[in-house]
Amino acid sequence: MSQTLVPDAVPTADAMRDRLARAKEASRATAGLTSDDKAAALHAIADALVAHRDRILAANADDLARGEREGLASALLDRLLLDDARIGGLAAAVRDIAALPDPIGQVVRGHRMPAGAALEEVRVPFGVVGAIYEARPNVTVDIAALALRSGNAAVLRGGSAARQSNTVLIDVMRAALDAQGITPDAVQTVDDFGRDGARSLMHGRGFIDVLVPRGSAGLIETVVAESTVPVIETGAGIVHIVLDETAPEDWARDIVVNAKVQRPSVCNAVETVLVLRAAAERLVPGVVAALRAHGVTIHGDETVQRLVPGVVPATEEDWATEYLALEIAIRVVDTLDDAIDHIRAYSTGHTESIITTDQVRAERFLREVDSAVVMVNASTRFSDGGEFGFGAELGISTQKLHARGPMGLAELTSTKWLVRGAGQVRR
Amino acid sequence: MSQTLVPDAVPTADAMRDRLARAKEASRATAGLTSDDKAAALHAIADALVAHRDRILAANADDLARGEREGLASALLDRLLLDDARIGGLAAAVRDIAALPDPIGQVVRGHRMPAGAALEEVRVPFGVVGAIYEARPNVTVDIAALALRSGNAAVLRGGSAARQSNTVLIDVMRAALDAQGITPDAVQTVDDFGRDGARSLMHGRGFIDVLVPRGSAGLIETVVAESTVPVIETGAGIVHIVLDETAPEDWARDIVVNAKVQRPSVCNAVETVLVLRAAAERLVPGVVAALRAHGVTIHGDETVQRLVPGVVPATEEDWATEYLALEIAIRVVDTLDDAIDHIRAYSTGHTESIITTDQVRAERFLREVDSAVVMVNASTRFSDGGEFGFGAELGISTQKLHARGPMGLAELTSTKWLVRGAGQVRR
Repeated sequence: MSQTLVPDAVPTADAMRDRLARAKEASRATAGLTSDDKAAALHAIADALVAHRDRILAANADDLARGEREGLASALLDRLLLDDARIGGLAAAVRDIAALPDPIGQVVRGHRMPAGAALEEVRVPFGVVGAIYEARPNVTVDIAALALRSGNAAVLRGGSAARQSNTVLIDVMRAALDAQGITPDAVQTVDDFGRDGARSLMHGRGFIDVLVPRGSAGLIETVVAESTVPVIETGAGIVHIVLDETAPEDWARDIVVNAKVQRPSVCNAVETVLVLRAAAERLVPGVVAALRAHGVTIHGDETVQRLVPGVVPATEEDWATEYLALEIAIRVVDTLDDAIDHIRAYSTGHTESIITTDQVRAERFLREVDSAVVMVNASTRFSDGGEFGFGAELGISTQKLHARGPMGLAELTSTKWLVRGAGQVRR
Repeated sequence: MSQTLVPDAVPTADAMRDRLARAKEASRATAGLTSDDKAAALHAIADALVAHRDRILAANADDLARGEREGLASALLDRLLLDDARIGGLAAAVRDIAALPDPIGQVVRGHRMPAGAALEEVRVPFGVVGAIYEARPNVTVDIAALALRSGNAAVLRGGSAARQSNTVLIDVMRAALDAQGITPDAVQTVDDFGRDGARSLMHGRGFIDVLVPRGSAGLIETVVAESTVPVIETGAGIVHIVLDETAPEDWARDIVVNAKVQRPSVCNAVETVLVLRAAAERLVPGVVAALRAHGVTIHGDETVQRLVPGVVPATEEDWATEYLALEIAIRVVDTLDDAIDHIRAYSTGHTESIITTDQVRAERFLREVDSAVVMVNASTRFSDGGEFGFGAELGISTQKLHARGPMGLAELTSTKWLVRGAGQVRR
């Protein structure tokens, strides 16, 4: 992890344990809140964020100044930056989450058991949601709001680059909860414990019900490898588009361009295009020209280099790279099997799409590609909680346990089984 | 773990990696099998178990003889024992699993996305299911059959006490698959790698999609703490029944007796009874007498000792003990809050029940007790996959991620999202 020990931390196992125990206790209170209570609390948080704008901006200015002194890259400084518009956006996002249907109490399934007792599976909060994430301070508010809407308490460990901003944001949210008569321990940070804070979350069995890492592949890998509490892995996206022999030229061009350039820095942006050899001559020049018109650098294999001039020769490393930038890798493959094998070898299991008018090959691709989202004739940019109709998104899960693909509020819940009998015993 | 290194193992990292890679490859084949294919394969396995009865019994006799030499407890020897009837039972269980509805391909939810593409979430196999378990050889067949029915490959690590039995059972199942034209690598063991085999499953990221430990609390704890692959924790049950002030005498007696004595060795058997003080005098003597009539030893707190003679004084340790035997702990509490606090402190989160005719207190118990299954006026013995209508049971999950409570075939699956578009790009 890129996080460093906060110098003024005085970590003690007891103090951390106490904090986690208070989160657990608070989660019993948040689990009992009505949907109306939770919505009111979130609106109070949104109001408070706007009301305390100046304090938040001052803390953020400190973080930015420190970041500049420490030579943080300008892209990272931009992600760290808060301004009036972004604080307004934060508050609006919290109000959007307040407006989402409450998943808690939803009856998932149920029936009468053979002996006559009524059986119901109902949605309940996890309890305490832990999060370990990097520089963006908006994640602090996002995760707290999603956790609260779904009846959970949250314990947060943010990036040290955003330390001052996060401290004030959490302080503002806690005060807003307190004013609503909700225990402020429902939102806590372990930032002041530095690395030990992250460790206490990863090893917080009995206190942390689920841990969500958000950030670089390295951070996620560390959390998955070290945690003894259940983790939901939100993953990097080495996303592929396959241009089949029958791919219409306009769909191929428009979908690849949209998937690459509409927002290149996000995980559902395409990174590698695989072109069937029979269609390479017909499709590659047009797709490359359209990408270049948007400033995209092309890394290509030998066939691509032969078909269009000025292509950067692609290396093995390119197939395994998530550029998150205006760069793309293009490879020509002989068969659909080769395309699927390439995806198996290099995909992170996030999203893949095929452009084809061949129904048999389309269905085969949907069946055989083992990724969270598999598409035919659509831009990979649709792989998104908002587009899927979830209203808010916690991230995109690339694991198979519990949640796969875009995660909404329901993915921050568990269930329990209720049995209502009248004296039944088992024969 | 109680497992010891198999003396003839020649573990090499490469050989293990190769075996896991073959499981992954096999899982692509099993994922593509139709429901009919899978049912036919399971019937072939059931036939083969019966046909190779003599070989299985001979191997089992070797395990039993070794167990006796090594001084295995008679209860463990009984769990290890296979005979004609138990092999018949194994085959019948496999045929029952073959008859279950196939979860794979089930459409969980779906709708048209705003831009017009069709979105579907469909059930898919996990891929490779790993299992680490203790002495009972029937678990070997059970888990393999459940994994295959749900389109998964299985890699098994059984207890060393059942080594010969497991080797032959796996051999018989693999031959049956082979004869059906299904790759035998869909069912594999790492028993020959000893402890390194278990370690290879726990650290098999990229190969093992989910790992299921089954056995003692110690084994489960080890697997959860050490694994870097996702684990489904199937847990021990310190199960409680609360006798409320309004509990009818006959329900209190019949349910406690049923929950304790119908099958004391299983995880949904009650271990602790909490009696509200206002009902103690009315209920305790009758419940104790009924339990004693079935040979149950009573551990009681001071009030219980005062109400009935001959009670073993309960210690702190009793509240934290899963007896799995004809023993029970009884404690008198002042309020429903005290009962819920006791459950919070000592429960493993498996199953709890309250006996009451007070609707308000019943609903409060259902809401506030945070266990996988919470009941009113029913025996905890109903906390079971068969009773819940799942047809087969992989175990009872006491974790909150992915699966909670009794797990059926659907809990051995993940989902993926399919998008079928017609050239859609994101605006």
